[in-house]
Amino acid sequence: MRAAVFDGPGEIGIEEVPTPEVESPRAAVVRVTHTAVCGSDLWFYRGESDRETGSRVGHEPMGVVEAVGEDVTSVEPGDRVLAPFVISCGRCEFCRKGLHTSCVNGDSWLGAQAEYVSTSEADGTLVRVPDRYADDEATLQALLPLTDVMGTGHHAAVSAGVGQGDTAVVVGDGAVGLCAVLAARRLGAERIIAMGHHEDRLALAEEFGATQTVTERGEAAVERARELTYGGGNHVLECVGAASAMDTAIEVCRPGGTVGYVGVPYGVDESGLDVFTMFSDNITLSGGVAPVRAYAEELMADVLGGRLDPSPIFTKTVDLDGVPEGYRAMDERDAIKVMVRP
Amino acid sequence: MRAAVFDGPGEIGIEEVPTPEVESPRAAVVRVTHTAVCGSDLWFYRGESDRETGSRVGHEPMGVVEAVGEDVTSVEPGDRVLAPFVISCGRCEFCRKGLHTSCVNGDSWLGAQAEYVSTSEADGTLVRVPDRYADDEATLQALLPLTDVMGTGHHAAVSAGVGQGDTAVVVGDGAVGLCAVLAARRLGAERIIAMGHHEDRLALAEEFGATQTVTERGEAAVERARELTYGGGNHVLECVGAASAMDTAIEVCRPGGTVGYVGVPYGVDESGLDVFTMFSDNITLSGGVAPVRAYAEELMADVLGGRLDPSPIFTKTVDLDGVPEGYRAMDERDAIKVMVRP
Repeated sequence: MRAAVFDGPGEIGIEEVPTPEVESPRAAVVRVTHTAVCGSDLWFYRGESDRETGSRVGHEPMGVVEAVGEDVTSVEPGDRVLAPFVISCGRCEFCRKGLHTSCVNGDSWLGAQAEYVSTSEADGTLVRVPDRYADDEATLQALLPLTDVMGTGHHAAVSAGVGQGDTAVVVGDGAVGLCAVLAARRLGAERIIAMGHHEDRLALAEEFGATQTVTERGEAAVERARELTYGGGNHVLECVGAASAMDTAIEVCRPGGTVGYVGVPYGVDESGLDVFTMFSDNITLSGGVAPVRAYAEELMADVLGGRLDPSPIFTKTVDLDGVPEGYRAMDERDAIKVMVRP
Repeated sequence: MRAAVFDGPGEIGIEEVPTPEVESPRAAVVRVTHTAVCGSDLWFYRGESDRETGSRVGHEPMGVVEAVGEDVTSVEPGDRVLAPFVISCGRCEFCRKGLHTSCVNGDSWLGAQAEYVSTSEADGTLVRVPDRYADDEATLQALLPLTDVMGTGHHAAVSAGVGQGDTAVVVGDGAVGLCAVLAARRLGAERIIAMGHHEDRLALAEEFGATQTVTERGEAAVERARELTYGGGNHVLECVGAASAMDTAIEVCRPGGTVGYVGVPYGVDESGLDVFTMFSDNITLSGGVAPVRAYAEELMADVLGGRLDPSPIFTKTVDLDGVPEGYRAMDERDAIKVMVRP
């Protein structure tokens, strides 16, 4: 089969690789019909994080089950499924408490920007799309973000403690930030302040439910957000993952408030967190890599019920040969998020 | 009157200074009968944090009200009172939500290791000891830690989310760590694992309710604590404030768990927090400078009811002339905490 491969910074190739097979009783192979390029992929694409040359890429699979191992009970060949960005068993302590990213049997996808993927843990990982929606293209495109960015934005909102009537401040206007706006609205936030630097994305944030936007940069952005929140927000959703965004999130947080963070914190180890401000103001830092599997059912229910549609984040679609172009478009911010249809 | 003054690293002097007077309608002057030397004072005493030479020291006052301004309603001259380590108004948003350390009218004490102190906000700051206990020396010594370390240990336990039946891991065997053990037990913890390096203090931790102690250092300590908790504790109370202790706390925290931290995080800005571990394991960091005023009433009720007695942390008592010796004893770990009776 054909799959996307990392050939070094700025270089994605499409190569012939072995087609996966069911190799154990709990495994399954899925033919990928939809997947995506993730903002977190840009870290290695830009050479800002290490990744082995020749390694396969992509971690947001949706498709049709091709084959299952003898112990798999939740899906069968022909079922439409989606899967979170990590493999989880569904049985261990952490899966049971909704922290599938800490699954003791967990694993990464070998690469979902490919014609097929395999999971060693089908029952714990795959989420079945009900048959009546299984071939509805609009529904599938609205469900695809549940593999990563919608669940991640939701985790930011949950971690920041957003509830009914709250004011939420969302730092970042990328796909995760936009999904965080949807998530905050879904959890009942009364005011949602979206902070970012791109007019088109902030316009989408407003469509998604942002009541105000902050387009300033640096200290001016912090001042504006603090003004809009009369001194800082109690619930701040950090959806970028860079050190500067983490600083912004802490600075716009009200004393006693919570920063929910979900972006891989690149650069924070070098520049450090502003722990003194957090300490003085009793700011809680909560979140981490999002256990999106835990949120799949409740978010899917809202998508299928017509109450949630993150699909407008996909502003470009490519086929497998177009994956390199997809990375380029996201890197140059020509696209918010790129859908891949292998 | 006479008061303790910082004369430079390692040098505490006793000087004649102006006796405070009531200078505004909400103010009060208190004759100090009991106060203490705090572990946080050791940072400037050791030259590890900056402090102006000639500045007055001490922030844990208990005493008898000497005079009050015309608008003060909660206390009158002759009342026995204690006060938290910061002045707060009791009226602003933050005081009302129990975050008195962020009080918009807040202030620091000019120096409580003195014959008298004054507060600009008597009603919001002073906590009256009921008359029937006002001259009971054992009760007063059990109440004195409510000015700082007992409220701080409690804040660590609350921030770490300790509740009934939980396992709590307490990092640090100083006065705050020992009070955190009491607080965790009070909140219903079933197992309390105290980590420290001093046998006498850990023996006291066991008297206070610790079910196990960890005396190893470095990686061995982390391994032992993880073994005792079958992979890390869900509730870790960081009660030291140094970067290395924060690292330990994060390392012994179970995925999805919470570190409650209350020590001034010295050194963390240089060495950095292990944000990647926190991110990967979804560890929440909560806490900060403890709003001990918020906890005074509930903790006092337990002290007066005979259910809480942190006074064994005072292993040495000095008068005002003995304050320099009190700092020396704490610096050299000859005393856990020093009581001062001016």
